[in-house]
Amino acid sequence: MSVIVRAAEPRDVTDILRLIRALASYEREPDAVRATEASLKETLFAPNAQVFGLVAEHEGAVVGIAIWFLNYSTWTGRPGLYLEDLFVEDRVRGLGIGKALFRALAREALARGCARLDWAVLDWNEPAMDFYRAIGGAPQTGWQPWRLAGEALEAMAR
Amino acid sequence: MSVIVRAAEPRDVTDILRLIRALASYEREPDAVRATEASLKETLFAPNAQVFGLVAEHEGAVVGIAIWFLNYSTWTGRPGLYLEDLFVEDRVRGLGIGKALFRALAREALARGCARLDWAVLDWNEPAMDFYRAIGGAPQTGWQPWRLAGEALEAMAR
Repeated sequence: MSVIVRAAEPRDVTDILRLIRALASYEREPDAVRATEASLKETLFAPNAQVFGLVAEHEGAVVGIAIWFLNYSTWTGRPGLYLEDLFVEDRVRGLGIGKALFRALAREALARGCARLDWAVLDWNEPAMDFYRAIGGAPQTGWQPWRLAGEALEAMAR
Repeated sequence: MSVIVRAAEPRDVTDILRLIRALASYEREPDAVRATEASLKETLFAPNAQVFGLVAEHEGAVVGIAIWFLNYSTWTGRPGLYLEDLFVEDRVRGLGIGKALFRALAREALARGCARLDWAVLDWNEPAMDFYRAIGGAPQTGWQPWRLAGEALEAMAR
């Protein structure tokens, strides 16, 4: 088994969008994805882009992605690495590709002085949680995410 | 009552750190804050800084802060505004200062093309949740935050 994890390049956006859509389907929201190849190209590869991608290649094909950015904690006083999306194609599960992506993310985090690597998982996704536990991750309890969006966000701005 | 909300400036770091520590005390973690005036100055005001602060002034004193950064959603294909910390001093609660900070954040979010304004609250903090509900916020259910940090993060990188 040979897996190569590398920084995403503009030529990868078709594969990246395909895998983002596959993740949305897996997460039971197949129509949720509004990103396009053009928006991804802009987000990941514009000068001074602050969103980053890793891709995993297996036998010459892109089979996995990790999309991440830096966040910040006032408590640690340091940046953190936030993993927005991680996905590995079904047909290559169990080959260590998810772990290879996490290893690259952990190295990236340490290289940037990050105190933490954070992400979120859907609360019914037990297979993912088993994997996260196996690599040393821990669920963060006690915090409730909140959101202002759409009409409510526009009303607040007025 | 006059409240001014403005972008934080380097001269505000003493007040910002004081209010971060007051928030940590309120959140029952008074010793959790590792940030220093120097680290805040670097994080908020270095060239190309990606973490931003707003301060609220009341009668000439800084009495509230909001610390935020941009995140990104592959589903929306757009950035989001993530509110890391919001705090208003006890003695000026009920004067609309929290709402004034949220209004400034909502305007910032729309100006930057953000689809969402997100934050997290401790699950016992009912007074905060009442306020968030009143301004149109909604809790996001179904997602569980996870983290890799410390020894586990270093082990993963090896």
